[in-house]
Amino acid sequence: MQTPARSVALSQVTEWEDGEVRALDDMLAVEEPLEIRVNGAPITVTMRTPGHDLELAAGFLLTEGIVKSVEEIRDLRPGANCNVVNVDLRARSFEAADLQRNFFAASSCGICGKATIESIRRRGLTPPNPNFRVRTDVLCGLPEAIRAEQAVFASTGGLHAAALFDAEGRLLALREDIGRHNAVDKVIGWAMHAARLPLGESILMVSGRGGFEIAQKALAGGVPVLASVSAPSSLAVRLAQELGLTLIGFLRGRRFVVYAGASRCLPEECE
Amino acid sequence: MQTPARSVALSQVTEWEDGEVRALDDMLAVEEPLEIRVNGAPITVTMRTPGHDLELAAGFLLTEGIVKSVEEIRDLRPGANCNVVNVDLRARSFEAADLQRNFFAASSCGICGKATIESIRRRGLTPPNPNFRVRTDVLCGLPEAIRAEQAVFASTGGLHAAALFDAEGRLLALREDIGRHNAVDKVIGWAMHAARLPLGESILMVSGRGGFEIAQKALAGGVPVLASVSAPSSLAVRLAQELGLTLIGFLRGRRFVVYAGASRCLPEECE
Repeated sequence: MQTPARSVALSQVTEWEDGEVRALDDMLAVEEPLEIRVNGAPITVTMRTPGHDLELAAGFLLTEGIVKSVEEIRDLRPGANCNVVNVDLRARSFEAADLQRNFFAASSCGICGKATIESIRRRGLTPPNPNFRVRTDVLCGLPEAIRAEQAVFASTGGLHAAALFDAEGRLLALREDIGRHNAVDKVIGWAMHAARLPLGESILMVSGRGGFEIAQKALAGGVPVLASVSAPSSLAVRLAQELGLTLIGFLRGRRFVVYAGASRCLPEECE
Repeated sequence: MQTPARSVALSQVTEWEDGEVRALDDMLAVEEPLEIRVNGAPITVTMRTPGHDLELAAGFLLTEGIVKSVEEIRDLRPGANCNVVNVDLRARSFEAADLQRNFFAASSCGICGKATIESIRRRGLTPPNPNFRVRTDVLCGLPEAIRAEQAVFASTGGLHAAALFDAEGRLLALREDIGRHNAVDKVIGWAMHAARLPLGESILMVSGRGGFEIAQKALAGGVPVLASVSAPSSLAVRLAQELGLTLIGFLRGRRFVVYAGASRCLPEECE
């Protein structure tokens, strides 16, 4: 994979090892703000690793519920400043308040996990493809496929990855970012541009933890199986159970743990 | 350390290992939304692990630049709903727009890393204690001290930790959370309540990566040394260099890498 030059930066550092001190050149993962403007108004600033910014913006709009399809986006272009992406929506009625509403996941019964999940339902997110199946040998091969592709991580040790695979474990897209949620938005944005939504025949694998935000983004993309190398959170599991997402954690070597939706990867009697 | 019961939740999961399938009980890190209200108005919802919510709210207000000291907080109390914290500031003039301004780190020259660092300077953050020194043997002992204390992580594998130490490596406070930034806010909030700000004689150690947001929060607490087990980002390094924070990464075993401010832990000629 080609690594965009702006994703990594050289830094002079000092290494201490067992009393020995050395000056070294080190590669750092680049982190810079990106402002997303919708119909002229800034709606968010995210700290991200530069590269694939248009995908990031498109994916963000979809996974945060601001658009439901790529067709709602009339135009998407970099700003004059390279840390800005301008998005024009076909609907002129976009209100920043809509985003605010998603963000403040309250309901009449107050702020809680249940209300947060309800707010996801209210966005119209539905259970992903119930007929999708993935074989256990395919699942076990995903971490190695990511490692082989992760160009930037190897040099900086500081980036998260999100990758989309098909049912046979073939890599469709991999994106890296200092923020795990950004890496997910980038692969979802890639799928939008490739007219592959909903991703009903795909597996999304992320480095690190599988929290609520990541599970929500997977559902917004129509992904039926979300896997990570580490533990999910309680709310991610609840969301996955209630919205029919297969949620897999601790996917390492010849072992994984299924937290929800086991029937997509194991015999039904294991559910 | 006592683990608050609400920090972990039991879940029935299915483990697949080398073709063998087992039903298991698993402990999950709890993730729930917390709304912080200032003078009656909600200013943010953060997905956090319940526990030490008042510290989290106080720390958030300080590290995000909404208050400069604990004295500006007149009252801090849980809401009727346990996922709400109400904060009354002495100043009645608090505007949510102030937070917005911090969040949108733009400047006349546009959105960029430089503007982001300028926005930190505008908040009045100054270089932490230049006279603080930490010995290399103390640094190398921190990861083990955290492991020994990390009660929840051991059971769920899903939590980040932030810990404050003194110059001799004695643990002052450790907090865990599904979000690394929340864990940092909780230890800074602890320090506010313990009247220990600025933390000019302390080391802050975090699990995972040392990004811009964490470095900014360390500076807001007056911490002179920030250490992590993994890599920092480019913007965290730049902020640390410009504002005189000692930034250490890859602190593991008998090795670490100094990205900024080496004179606090190594002979000056190593800078």
